Amino acid sequence: MTGSASPLRIGVLASGEGTNLQALLDACDEGRINGHVVLMLTNNPRAGAIVRCKRADVPFAVVDHRAFSERTAFDAVLVEKLRAARIDLVVLAGFMRIISPVLINAFAQRIMNIHPSLLPAFPGKEPQRQALEHGVRFSGCTVHFVDTGVDTGPIILQAVVPVHETDDVETLKRRIQEEEHRIYPQAVQFFAQGRLVLNGRRVTILPEASSLPDSF
Amino acid sequence: MTGSASPLRIGVLASGEGTNLQALLDACDEGRINGHVVLMLTNNPRAGAIVRCKRADVPFAVVDHRAFSERTAFDAVLVEKLRAARIDLVVLAGFMRIISPVLINAFAQRIMNIHPSLLPAFPGKEPQRQALEHGVRFSGCTVHFVDTGVDTGPIILQAVVPVHETDDVETLKRRIQEEEHRIYPQAVQFFAQGRLVLNGRRVTILPEASSLPDSF
Repeated sequence: MTGSASPLRIGVLASGEGTNLQALLDACDEGRINGHVVLMLTNNPRAGAIVRCKRADVPFAVVDHRAFSERTAFDAVLVEKLRAARIDLVVLAGFMRIISPVLINAFAQRIMNIHPSLLPAFPGKEPQRQALEHGVRFSGCTVHFVDTGVDTGPIILQAVVPVHETDDVETLKRRIQEEEHRIYPQAVQFFAQGRLVLNGRRVTILPEASSLPDSF
Repeated sequence: MTGSASPLRIGVLASGEGTNLQALLDACDEGRINGHVVLMLTNNPRAGAIVRCKRADVPFAVVDHRAFSERTAFDAVLVEKLRAARIDLVVLAGFMRIISPVLINAFAQRIMNIHPSLLPAFPGKEPQRQALEHGVRFSGCTVHFVDTGVDTGPIILQAVVPVHETDDVETLKRRIQEEEHRIYPQAVQFFAQGRLVLNGRRVTILPEASSLPDSF
């Protein structure tokens, strides 16, 4: 997880509308991430993420999971394509397939996910609904490294939003999404800068290199 | 859980230093809670909470749990004393005994607890240590009604604090405690005002009576 001066080669896995993909594309365009999305892989031929890639001239491929009898075979194809594109960091952006150790081990500590809750609260499906039904007063989102559990990996960044009594799943989802679009690019930039260090399951964010003394 | 104009009769159960007890005493004194702590029960003859009661002229009793072979018998004595003092609301303030259904059912939906984490994350013991070891970026505290689970009851109020990379258990504990002393009296006042309504496991906070239209 060391940084380098050369721009980060980002691979995005998406299944849906791709709003987090868009946030990453915008952040790369605007120089907030020292890197580029060089490949987007999707399992869904109708993913909105495809439209965003076409518009931004980003290469993409559709790998239909229904063509594979085993998850590991599907993941092996993803790994092959990611390696061929010399991907430094794999970013899950609404990728609706559980990924297997085949992919996780191929990119150990180089796969990020974002989950719309304050993990470890409300992992898994429909976290916004879970939060509302539990009656919490705050929720948010969590960027984490992916490990073999469901939403259990080391936490990189989190953001908090209030939960209002008048909220339904959609209003809460939108409020959280605004924060997702803010912290996901930030986490990717920390990675690009080589500032993320894993200590056990805790992630330390190093200060910016420019703020370090010369003798560091 | 309906309110009344007469001041709330609060019973506090405490085992330790009693900083949350102090926050409640101060809030009652300053009129931020329409009520009074009319009884403090402790299982610990050396609890700092006792000193605070003496200073504030609040009746207290020591009920040593070691004198009881069963938790239910211990709780039955607490219930007897709370009933004799005509307690409206039981407030757990660092009470280090797990309470049994004997007490919970005697004061159904009239027992509050505060837990130093953003529940449902990190229930049980040493939540600050749990939070640090998990590597979360935010933690906080939760005021909830007590049910028969451990820190599982309906959530009344929560407050959020950042977790810094330089934090240890003590610094995080102190940061959370400041918020505890703010939201616990607030939750008790909502109860005193009759503004807390339980819908399933969600707690709705009604608007202040004075802000309702006359026809309400």
